[in-house]
Amino acid sequence: MKGKFLVFEGIDGSGKTTQLKLLGDKLSARGCPVLYTREPGGTRIGETVRELLLNPQHSELVPVAEALLYAAARAQHVAQVILPALQEGKIVLCDRFLDSSLAYQGFGRGLDVGQLEKLNETATAGLKPDLVLLLDFLCDTGMERITGSGRGADRIEQEDRVFHRKVRAGYLTLAGRDPDRYRVIDANRTIEQVHHDIIGVVEEILG
Amino acid sequence: MKGKFLVFEGIDGSGKTTQLKLLGDKLSARGCPVLYTREPGGTRIGETVRELLLNPQHSELVPVAEALLYAAARAQHVAQVILPALQEGKIVLCDRFLDSSLAYQGFGRGLDVGQLEKLNETATAGLKPDLVLLLDFLCDTGMERITGSGRGADRIEQEDRVFHRKVRAGYLTLAGRDPDRYRVIDANRTIEQVHHDIIGVVEEILG
Repeated sequence: MKGKFLVFEGIDGSGKTTQLKLLGDKLSARGCPVLYTREPGGTRIGETVRELLLNPQHSELVPVAEALLYAAARAQHVAQVILPALQEGKIVLCDRFLDSSLAYQGFGRGLDVGQLEKLNETATAGLKPDLVLLLDFLCDTGMERITGSGRGADRIEQEDRVFHRKVRAGYLTLAGRDPDRYRVIDANRTIEQVHHDIIGVVEEILG
Repeated sequence: MKGKFLVFEGIDGSGKTTQLKLLGDKLSARGCPVLYTREPGGTRIGETVRELLLNPQHSELVPVAEALLYAAARAQHVAQVILPALQEGKIVLCDRFLDSSLAYQGFGRGLDVGQLEKLNETATAGLKPDLVLLLDFLCDTGMERITGSGRGADRIEQEDRVFHRKVRAGYLTLAGRDPDRYRVIDANRTIEQVHHDIIGVVEEILG
């Protein structure tokens, strides 16, 4: 692969989308070819699956079906968007990937993490990010940001604080298991401070 | 489980839906509690996934994402519809189930059958049909039935004859591997003859 695959992870409200955009702007200004994308979604089929997953009316969705829908959207995303961009030498900036499934469906919902990893191994054909930027953020502040944003919370965001605390702890466990790939960024600071740290880490990885 | 789980399998155009309805009418007339259902679909979420899967415009859908979408719809179907009905003692008559994924995505598309079985083990939590009625049918006749039906062919039905021959051969291989669960019915006969054979097999299973 000629390109680099950088993934932003973290609980809802941690600032992933803002930071991804800021990083992309900086890299583009330096002449790097950047592709922005997100999960669930990133393709026409994936965006349809996203609507299904995040629709607050779908309260009957069971955890295993949820995990399989995320994996399906991911399989389409990897094959149709991410792999071709990496082969073209692009820097792919992705808002959530595999580790979201492990943190949310595994640590959050209590599905077996090993089983989720196998499932996603099928979905991604073994593709892993070059770098996972975990924006670590206090759950209560994340929830307040969602509530205060004026838009309605989606099906996942509507889960309670206990769920989001399990997800956050899950992310930190995943980071501890794979310290070479993960960088934990303290996101309880100003946008500028967080961006500064991210630039430092990315420069180290891209050289 | 107090109920019985009977699945109809076969290539498109083999008469599954007609035969399922005839069997259900017969069982209902005898006072058996029958639940009719189908895959992909059978639930609100599953029917949305069905539209996504069968839409002829979705030609970009990759085989792995296709397999995961079928498995997701199945997981929801098992948890929300099939298991509760079996626990209530119903006879569940299902138009396609797990073996469709093995025949179509495995033997048809060339995905690894063992990997598909593991994936679906996750989706079904190990639930298997008590009986699989395989309506074995010559592919060319099946294709002609679809073409002659007046409705447009869906994304899967639009596949060529070579694909459908692989699927048919796949079904026969699956039947050969699990002869206790499978009954192969020659569906190249009149509706009445096929129905008569099905009744014979089902009476043997239900006692």
